[in-house]
Amino acid sequence: MANFGFSRLRVVNPYDVAFREARSAVGAAPLLRAAEDFPTVADAVAECGLVVGTTSVGHRELQHPIRRLEYGARLILRRLHSGPVALLFGSEKFGLSNDDLSHCHWLMRIPTVDQNLSMNLGQAVALCLYELARDPKAVELRPERIRRAAAGESEQITSQLIDALRRSGYMNPVTAASSEEKVRRLIRRLDIPARDVPVLLGMLRQILWKLG
Amino acid sequence: MANFGFSRLRVVNPYDVAFREARSAVGAAPLLRAAEDFPTVADAVAECGLVVGTTSVGHRELQHPIRRLEYGARLILRRLHSGPVALLFGSEKFGLSNDDLSHCHWLMRIPTVDQNLSMNLGQAVALCLYELARDPKAVELRPERIRRAAAGESEQITSQLIDALRRSGYMNPVTAASSEEKVRRLIRRLDIPARDVPVLLGMLRQILWKLG
Repeated sequence: MANFGFSRLRVVNPYDVAFREARSAVGAAPLLRAAEDFPTVADAVAECGLVVGTTSVGHRELQHPIRRLEYGARLILRRLHSGPVALLFGSEKFGLSNDDLSHCHWLMRIPTVDQNLSMNLGQAVALCLYELARDPKAVELRPERIRRAAAGESEQITSQLIDALRRSGYMNPVTAASSEEKVRRLIRRLDIPARDVPVLLGMLRQILWKLG
Repeated sequence: MANFGFSRLRVVNPYDVAFREARSAVGAAPLLRAAEDFPTVADAVAECGLVVGTTSVGHRELQHPIRRLEYGARLILRRLHSGPVALLFGSEKFGLSNDDLSHCHWLMRIPTVDQNLSMNLGQAVALCLYELARDPKAVELRPERIRRAAAGESEQITSQLIDALRRSGYMNPVTAASSEEKVRRLIRRLDIPARDVPVLLGMLRQILWKLG
C-alpha cells in the first residue's frame, strides 16, 4: 500500500489485535498504525460508493460479475472521481465469505494462468494496487529491431579486452576488480549488434597476439 | 512465476541448497524442483539475448539506463521474439551487487511512490511477471455484459410497486400522477439486471397479497 501511495487500511474484525505491531517494511509502519478497525464489512465500507471484492475464483459458484484486473482497475479509477471505493480482500486462508461477497458490487480477479493455484495475500494486494497506480502512458514503444550479442558473446569480448588491457599495463593491479566491472559495464552499455561480435573478437585476437 | 506462466527459474549460487524443498504455493512445487543452479550470473544468463536487472534504485549510483516497469516490460516482450531474456533479481536483503549489475544491459524499476521504501522480493517478482503477462487489450471498456431488464419488465415492476404504494397509503391522490412518474424514473435509474426481475416481482406480489 505504501509503495503505491494508498493510505487508508481498514481491517474487519481482525483475529489478532497485534496486527498493528506487525513487522512491516521500512516506511510502512505509520500506515499500519493508522489502520482502522471495524466490527463488520458493512461498517468498513459504509461511505464507499463502490465496493469491489477480490477473488481467485474456482472454489465457489459466484453470483457476481467478475472483471479482470486490467479492466476492473479502469472502472475503479473512474468511480474514484465521484467518491471513495473499497477494495475488499479476504483472509489468506479462506478468502472472502459469501456474506462478505454480498456487500460487493462486483468482483475483480487477477488474470493468472491457473485459477486453482493459490496466491499470497501480499502479492495479490500489491498487484491490484500496482494496476491502479500504473501509468498506461509509460508503455509507449520505441522500435529496436537489430539482434544483439548474447550474454556469452559479450562476456567473450569483455574477457579478451580485459586480457589485452592487462597485458598492455592499462589495468592497475590495486583497482583491477573494479576496472573489470567497468569494462564489463561498458561492453554491456554498447549493446553490441550480434553481427559485430566476430569483427570485434578478430580485432582483439590480433591485438592479443601482438601483445604476446 | 507459476501464477503468470513462467517456468524457468535459475538460481545463482544459493546459500541454502534446501531452497528446492522450500514451502511453496500449491502447484508451484514442480517449478521449484526444476530450478537450475548456476555458480555465476554469467553462466546463468549465457544464452540470453537480453539481461535485465531489477532495482529499487536509491542506494547506489547506478551506471545503467533505468526503465520503468511498464515500458521495460514492452521491450522485454519484443526481445523475447528473438531469444530468451533473463530477468535478474537480487537477494531480498542486499539486492544485486555491482558485479551482478555489470552483467545487465539495463535495469528495470517498479514505479513506486517512495523509492526508499523497501519491497518484498516475492512482491517485486509478482509485479514484474504480472506486467509481462498482462493483456493490454483487457483494459478496453466493454459495455456491461449483464443483460438488463427490458422496458416491459421495468414497467411490470413499476406498476406493481405503484399498486403497493397506493394500497399502503403512500400515494397522495392529488399528486398521484407525478408520484407515478417519480417511481417510474426511479426504477429506470436502478437499471435492474434482467435475472433479478422475477425475484423483485415475487417480493412485490407477496407484499400486495398481504396488503390485501
